[in-house]
Amino acid sequence: MPVGYSQLPELLPIAGVRLASVAAGIRYQQRNDLVLVELAGASQCAAVFTRNAFCAAPVLIAKQHLAQTSPRYLLINSGNANAGTGEVGMADARATCSALADTAGCRREQVLPFSTGVIGQRLPVERIEAALPGALGGLSEEGWKDAAQAIMTTDTVAKGVSKTLEVDGSMISITGIAKGAGMIRPDMATMLAFIASDAKLEAGALTRSLSRAAEASFNRITVDGDTSTNDACVLIATGTSRSPLITVEHPAYAAFCDAVSEVCEHLAQLIVRDAEGATKFVTIQVEGGYEPQECLDVAYTIAHSPLVKTALFASDPNWGRILAAVGRAGLADLDIEKIRIFLGGVCIVRDGGMAAEYREQDGQLIMGQDEILIRVQLGRGEACERIWTCDLSEEYVRINAEYRT
Amino acid sequence: MPVGYSQLPELLPIAGVRLASVAAGIRYQQRNDLVLVELAGASQCAAVFTRNAFCAAPVLIAKQHLAQTSPRYLLINSGNANAGTGEVGMADARATCSALADTAGCRREQVLPFSTGVIGQRLPVERIEAALPGALGGLSEEGWKDAAQAIMTTDTVAKGVSKTLEVDGSMISITGIAKGAGMIRPDMATMLAFIASDAKLEAGALTRSLSRAAEASFNRITVDGDTSTNDACVLIATGTSRSPLITVEHPAYAAFCDAVSEVCEHLAQLIVRDAEGATKFVTIQVEGGYEPQECLDVAYTIAHSPLVKTALFASDPNWGRILAAVGRAGLADLDIEKIRIFLGGVCIVRDGGMAAEYREQDGQLIMGQDEILIRVQLGRGEACERIWTCDLSEEYVRINAEYRT
Repeated sequence: MPVGYSQLPELLPIAGVRLASVAAGIRYQQRNDLVLVELAGASQCAAVFTRNAFCAAPVLIAKQHLAQTSPRYLLINSGNANAGTGEVGMADARATCSALADTAGCRREQVLPFSTGVIGQRLPVERIEAALPGALGGLSEEGWKDAAQAIMTTDTVAKGVSKTLEVDGSMISITGIAKGAGMIRPDMATMLAFIASDAKLEAGALTRSLSRAAEASFNRITVDGDTSTNDACVLIATGTSRSPLITVEHPAYAAFCDAVSEVCEHLAQLIVRDAEGATKFVTIQVEGGYEPQECLDVAYTIAHSPLVKTALFASDPNWGRILAAVGRAGLADLDIEKIRIFLGGVCIVRDGGMAAEYREQDGQLIMGQDEILIRVQLGRGEACERIWTCDLSEEYVRINAEYRT
Repeated sequence: MPVGYSQLPELLPIAGVRLASVAAGIRYQQRNDLVLVELAGASQCAAVFTRNAFCAAPVLIAKQHLAQTSPRYLLINSGNANAGTGEVGMADARATCSALADTAGCRREQVLPFSTGVIGQRLPVERIEAALPGALGGLSEEGWKDAAQAIMTTDTVAKGVSKTLEVDGSMISITGIAKGAGMIRPDMATMLAFIASDAKLEAGALTRSLSRAAEASFNRITVDGDTSTNDACVLIATGTSRSPLITVEHPAYAAFCDAVSEVCEHLAQLIVRDAEGATKFVTIQVEGGYEPQECLDVAYTIAHSPLVKTALFASDPNWGRILAAVGRAGLADLDIEKIRIFLGGVCIVRDGGMAAEYREQDGQLIMGQDEILIRVQLGRGEACERIWTCDLSEEYVRINAEYRT
């Protein structure tokens, strides 16, 4: 069960976006594993992708296609990542795009492919091709919920959220879905996220709103530090609402950006809440750094420490492990006398050691909760960063030792 | 059971080094947890310590004392790290040194303190003081084996090794013991190692031989990436053998350095073999980098990947996880077409994807073994680095979720 999240809420349809989910038998039996998304002709589309040097074939193809034209279709499969597959994988990804283009009557470049699942196995192109007519026949604006389920791999729950906001008297809607539970340290990671709005956006404004939102959300979570080869996050604006065109200068631009950021942050947090084997949702906030990067260095060192993660799993206020992680984060000239560490509102470390007023039962109370805040004050500057992570349980090991076999 | 190591071999006594192990009741019941080491008056002593910014009190005191004079005694306790204890911890460490100095009749600065165990709890100074007379009375050149056992914390087996070499017709001996199983990524980590020889070494030569040996051994292992607050490695030369004084220029210096390096490498590997929950001993060798550092970046990214580690635990040749780790190691301008990855002698990745000739059963055969070599060729330079690590099992989580509570 995800931490603090039980089921998919109602997802608002977005005029101009139709979705279909079908069972192509890619890897799983008796469940949908292929999602087709059709975009209205005037839609704008922005995307951010993994920074792993070994990009999966669909990532490379999606980037190429996106650079050439506006997409009409997204073709998403779970169960197979088509990563580490070399030239053959590139040809396979192109073949699925061509097959869809031929059937739907568009150009291959108007199709963006997305894959998630096992690395290093060939994509079963024929099974995907065989499933396309059924998918095209099943497109519906009501397809978000099914799509959120069909893109799942080791996720235990479908992830999505909707928001509305008013722009010059018109209501616009934003709906997003995401998947991801392990191999998560987005710089984008094994996560896929698809977000659409019926707002009308100028292309540059759309790209900028996504970059900002992804940086503060998907790029601030980590489950296991493993950045995947396939991450992608897509933001679509169909322009089907009656709201005016939103440019970077438009007064509503900031509100639109905020709404996109909230959707992204919500989806990013859902990925951590549903992390493989997770029993705790942990926020790590590092304040008082010279620069944002050193705050992130400290935050990720804590977040990736197996000892901190297992202490979180055990609800054990073993603050020494947090202190040791801060100490090895690689910050030059760290003055340990100035550092303070808090569990929730409880100060645990001050003046280079355990805070004098700290009592074990106060730390125990915080660590016993499902949602935990670790705050570190470096006491040397104004920078502040916040990331989200989870604990490390035996279940994580079990899932990742058994996945594939 | 450690991987490929069953029990302590015979340890050679070193003339001029006497050891005693006693039960002070620091944390454990009914086992020795305090070790006293007495060094002959003319001994030279070199040491390297943790680079964690939060150094434990004994590390700070040992550095201070070592800078002032030659040590006569090492006082080592397990069960309590005296780390994260601030000024009180410093006073406690000094108090134990003073108590020993008073009883033994030396100066406080001639005592080096070492502690390993739980972080953040006060050292039970009185219990240590009470145990000192018994320890002084029990000193013996035959005490290495008991000492190797008394310094253990989560170790499942005592670790030690002896070597002999001939210098100008005289035999000299080297004996070393070590402890450590978790919170291991020495830059030195939760490990302690004590190595002594009856060779006669010039001080600078001794320091240099230890620095080199530690860099290539203890600083090339990782269990969980967590660098501890207490790591220390001490090398003693008592000068009690009949061998001549060894300086940096002496013809036997290289052989002495090699022998110390072999002892350190052996002890470092034993720590990984006995790593918490480990079932595999893994060597990661990265070749063809521009510089050593980028080889190390790739090697440690693989070694710290929970997904690679769980695949190793499962004996699953899930090479996609290794490939993804290489891809996220942060190397600029990585040409993935040039990268080759081998499991043992089997090429698994070439030309940006799975090697054409690779067969799953070949990978399976390698991954099923207890000792595994992962080789990565970056194909862009001459640098090469090698580190040792282990897998990540449910048992690791169990041990670290239960330790302390």
